Amino acid sequence: MTQTPRDPNFEQRVRASFERQAAMATFGASLACVVPGEVVIELPFRPELTQQHGFLHAGIVTSLMDSACGYATLSLMDPGAAVLSVEFKVNLLAPARGSRFSASGRVVRAGRTLTVVAGEFRVLEAAGEAQMAATPDATGALVAIMTGTMMAVRDRSGVVD
Amino acid sequence: MTQTPRDPNFEQRVRASFERQAAMATFGASLACVVPGEVVIELPFRPELTQQHGFLHAGIVTSLMDSACGYATLSLMDPGAAVLSVEFKVNLLAPARGSRFSASGRVVRAGRTLTVVAGEFRVLEAAGEAQMAATPDATGALVAIMTGTMMAVRDRSGVVD
Amino acid sequence: MTQTPRDPNFEQRVRASFERQAAMATFGASLACVVPGEVVIELPFRPELTQQHGFLHAGIVTSLMDSACGYATLSLMDPGAAVLSVEFKVNLLAPARGSRFSASGRVVRAGRTLTVVAGEFRVLEAAGEAQMAATPDATGALVAIMTGTMMAVRDRSGVVD
Amino acid sequence: MTQTPRDPNFEQRVRASFERQAAMATFGASLACVVPGEVVIELPFRPELTQQHGFLHAGIVTSLMDSACGYATLSLMDPGAAVLSVEFKVNLLAPARGSRFSASGRVVRAGRTLTVVAGEFRVLEAAGEAQMAATPDATGALVAIMTGTMMAVRDRSGVVD
Repeated sequence: MTQTPRDPNFEQRVRASFERQAAMATFGASLACVVPGEVVIELPFRPELTQQHGFLHAGIVTSLMDSACGYATLSLMDPGAAVLSVEFKVNLLAPARGSRFSASGRVVRAGRTLTVVAGEFRVLEAAGEAQMAATPDATGALVAIMTGTMMAVRDRSGVVD
Repeated sequence: MTQTPRDPNFEQRVRASFERQAAMATFGASLACVVPGEVVIELPFRPELTQQHGFLHAGIVTSLMDSACGYATLSLMDPGAAVLSVEFKVNLLAPARGSRFSASGRVVRAGRTLTVVAGEFRVLEAAGEAQMAATPDATGALVAIMTGTMMAVRDRSGVVD
Repeated sequence: MTQTPRDPNFEQRVRASFERQAAMATFGASLACVVPGEVVIELPFRPELTQQHGFLHAGIVTSLMDSACGYATLSLMDPGAAVLSVEFKVNLLAPARGSRFSASGRVVRAGRTLTVVAGEFRVLEAAGEAQMAATPDATGALVAIMTGTMMAVRDRSGVVD
Repeated sequence: MTQTPRDPNFEQRVRASFERQAAMATFGASLACVVPGEVVIELPFRPELTQQHGFLHAGIVTSLMDSACGYATLSLMDPGAAVLSVEFKVNLLAPARGSRFSASGRVVRAGRTLTVVAGEFRVLEAAGEAQMAATPDATGALVAIMTGTMMAVRDRSGVVD
């Protein structure tokens, strides 16, 4: 469900902002797909991001869905608007076990101030296998889902994109 | 509201499990306080954990509250039970700006299988200042709150504490 | 995405349980559709169910999605299991304005104890118009979405279906 | 934690708006307490508001917490601002069994546009007993908790208080 961007440079803005998210670089995450209203981020497994049982920490899973949802929102924003997370809720469906993961974020309803978003976190490659391509409709094992609210901020000093 | 632990070794179990959470070490987080039903984790600010505006990433904020809530739950568990996160919801109240933060997790209602938890994430020291001590009742600026559900898992291979 | 029921009498169990939900009768709600893993409930507008601006109260919207999600879960349960709501989160996207509404609930992931569900609440008929049929894929205006967790309860006295 | 109202007529506005919530009258709910930033609503048990096991329906529980949280928000609003629910999450801790219940809503953080709220739903009187008074600090059995976000709306036709 591609939506209409209000800024023709939406992809460039999203990619430039993602580059400034130091946490994404620390995790080893990369931006796989940016279309209006939907963004996919990929992450290879790293043992230094795990919880005590060796799975990816739920907070890492959340970080990626939050960024994907935030950038899905930004992709539909007018120039000059920045996006902040208001709230999100995550349901964890299965342990994050695998060698590569994808986090997608998609706009459910865009508003001038508030945007409702939905995220999914999936196993892209099981440990030792190459299973499927990284597209928004990837059908790998579902690890977690998110629903959240993003807020557009305008004219706030130091807060852009 | 201290609660009664079912395992006298609760603190040792929590501390040993925390040591195995590689993500916590990667973030630079440390366990500040473990009492039955409540756990506090501290985190110094690190630029490599930020989002695009230079604040701590909401997923990092979530990671710490999730771990604190999980360990608050584990502190009340019988020996042999492990704890997994079922779901959580986070409301972000203010940007995570500061030089030191605390994440607390507390058991609202403990059940044999499901436990309801509440978390708070606060600024412990503003940038450049030493403001207050790291105790469960710290009254620094509130950055985020969490409510969630934790599940006890028993007799699952490879999943302990 | 039809799923496989574990009880061939699933529809009869859902319908009999729905009949015992006095709140649904009080609201004037009816069961429109029961398939394995998905249930749709319909509600005509009633002024006695509104909030102060004349829209359907958010709690009524929630009630219907909660029942739809609970019965979607029950439709996949083995005989003897009852279903209780553990938690749900609702995002309100638009005022519940219209003459007829539908609430759908669908199982995202079924487990033996916990099931993750998703609900939608839509306008089925605008005030004064007949817009669309009551099917799970109805495409009317989206009023609210829910994600939640349901729990199977077995062998608890007085709690069935 | 009493907060400072921006409208000296806050209680009158809350009470007048509550009177217009037809759903509250339908449920038999009444406004027990209005202080700046906190509101308590009471509800006697009614069999016509139950789910299939004879407990109060989770959606009724939610309705009351949502109204209490909304009015807690309104109690701090400037004249002319109306309040709409953006989202809420409910954790159900125990069946709503009793002869009288209280739902409290309290402002966690008030903003010009968005306000974060917390709600509690408690048994005020067990079946057949008079247990405790209806005050914001009631200590009866906790049935459910809510966290949510409310939005102030200004200058929207037909949407006041």
